[in-house]
Amino acid sequence: MTTSSISTPEFRHIEEAAERIKPYANKTPVLTSRSLNKLAGGDLLFKCENFQRAGAFKFRGACNALFSLSDSQAKNGVATHSSGNHAQAVALSAKLRGIDAYIVMPENSPKIKVAAVKGYGAHITFCESNQNAREEALDDVVDKTGAHFIHPYDNEYVIAGQGTAAKELLEEVPDLDMILAPVGGGGLMSGTSIAARFLQPAIQIIGAEPELANDAYLSFTLDKRQFPDTTQTIADGLRTTLSERTFRIISQNVNQIITVSEEAIVRSMRHIWERMNIIIEPSCAVPFAAICNEEVEMTGKKAGIILTGGNVDLDHLPWQE
Amino acid sequence: MTTSSISTPEFRHIEEAAERIKPYANKTPVLTSRSLNKLAGGDLLFKCENFQRAGAFKFRGACNALFSLSDSQAKNGVATHSSGNHAQAVALSAKLRGIDAYIVMPENSPKIKVAAVKGYGAHITFCESNQNAREEALDDVVDKTGAHFIHPYDNEYVIAGQGTAAKELLEEVPDLDMILAPVGGGGLMSGTSIAARFLQPAIQIIGAEPELANDAYLSFTLDKRQFPDTTQTIADGLRTTLSERTFRIISQNVNQIITVSEEAIVRSMRHIWERMNIIIEPSCAVPFAAICNEEVEMTGKKAGIILTGGNVDLDHLPWQE
Repeated sequence: MTTSSISTPEFRHIEEAAERIKPYANKTPVLTSRSLNKLAGGDLLFKCENFQRAGAFKFRGACNALFSLSDSQAKNGVATHSSGNHAQAVALSAKLRGIDAYIVMPENSPKIKVAAVKGYGAHITFCESNQNAREEALDDVVDKTGAHFIHPYDNEYVIAGQGTAAKELLEEVPDLDMILAPVGGGGLMSGTSIAARFLQPAIQIIGAEPELANDAYLSFTLDKRQFPDTTQTIADGLRTTLSERTFRIISQNVNQIITVSEEAIVRSMRHIWERMNIIIEPSCAVPFAAICNEEVEMTGKKAGIILTGGNVDLDHLPWQE
Repeated sequence: MTTSSISTPEFRHIEEAAERIKPYANKTPVLTSRSLNKLAGGDLLFKCENFQRAGAFKFRGACNALFSLSDSQAKNGVATHSSGNHAQAVALSAKLRGIDAYIVMPENSPKIKVAAVKGYGAHITFCESNQNAREEALDDVVDKTGAHFIHPYDNEYVIAGQGTAAKELLEEVPDLDMILAPVGGGGLMSGTSIAARFLQPAIQIIGAEPELANDAYLSFTLDKRQFPDTTQTIADGLRTTLSERTFRIISQNVNQIITVSEEAIVRSMRHIWERMNIIIEPSCAVPFAAICNEEVEMTGKKAGIILTGGNVDLDHLPWQE
């Protein structure tokens, strides 16, 4: 497969990504809930990436990135560091492409995530649980194996892949007034904003972020990347900070970034479990929490929400801690 | 609305029910899971009644029964006794029809279910937690109010309503080799078996039941209704016993009834939570448990499974007890 060269993806790269991942990814359903609509005062359309393969939207980006590699780029396999959904997404994508995956995981990663990555046949290297140790271990793995590094979000193919979720949602429900997604490293928000701005130019594009990991909010507001210290949010998928590239894309396309408290995240997560009978992880509840807090004018409006993933430890639920 | 008189429903009564409940009920999605298919060795198609209104298939039967009442039958409202999904289903259906609902609930009913019934505006009468007390309290309520009793399963309109789930499933996936549902009082199994036998005469129809509440298994095997003492299964929706009517329908249509252990129920429930990211209640996991136990020959086969409901207490999950 040939691929046009990109560094900031455009909508056509999202279209290419959609074609490329089509044989592998799930076309996830869009679900609605009468009781949550009532609560919100408008129509909520949930794009259920918690039903995506490997349990999260991350599979879209990883799959697109892996299948965009030339055979010579791919021949020594791929590598990444992640304790979470990107690790599983890369491991599964590598299995599907038939190449090796080398995953650096912090030694305190949840057992269930380690088991999932192993289950896809990836090689795991454990390291201490800090950013330096992760990067050093990754460099070491790449040096030894010659594997190709797949960044979890600062990668144009990853961003284009993540954008396919919003593309599917807007093709199914074209008349959305707004679209919401959580912001961590900004890969999903970037891809979502590129797809939504192209398909529905007047749409409101809203990012949602935990107060305790508000780098995107601060960066967006001050128009310069910020690196706050505190990222100890329960929304573990959103602890990462924007890259220069995702910051640029988000600044250009996004209308608003809203922050929410930890308490609102847990309450909103539980609300979705109870009312929709689906399992979502804390990161996933952040946009709905912004709506519950009445931070979004919903009256008579139609909002699409990307539900990002459903990988939670069923032995330790946040409302039981 | 006019209704043909029935005591044992036929397929045309299920068609009537489908038309009658169409404005109110959700057409629930059919979901699949690659990893559960792999585990089973065949294709599993899950009809997700855990996404039905009020969280369970019970809404289909209650809605059909309530909207089949003439205005004079309905004028004093409806009554039932239930600590579970039928209570919520009757309460919501009554709200939709604009009549009163009187629900007798055991005083130890889970708070969340009491709150849901109240939330639909029903009148609740609490009683002691035993069958006699429930029936006495119900008689008393009916005497005082003149409300029309809606039996949870020994009611032809309820049975016809429950059959609409299998009808939808087989219309969406016509080439099923088998269809499975759990058996409690037999309302769902009866409706499912009538719909499936009509739409796909050669289909295998399989009931699944907890070993600890195996009255249907014993009755089916001995060809005579049995009333075992022990019904202390975790699958609280399946503690009831067949009525003469549901026993007769099941004997006529069903090919096999399989029983499963408590341990298998909890393990299978957790499996579905983990692999499908959907919330189901213990009763709901019983047919899948039968498949996991290799009690069903699945190789290369296509099985439809009615996932009955998702009303669980998120503060007390069975694997945490």
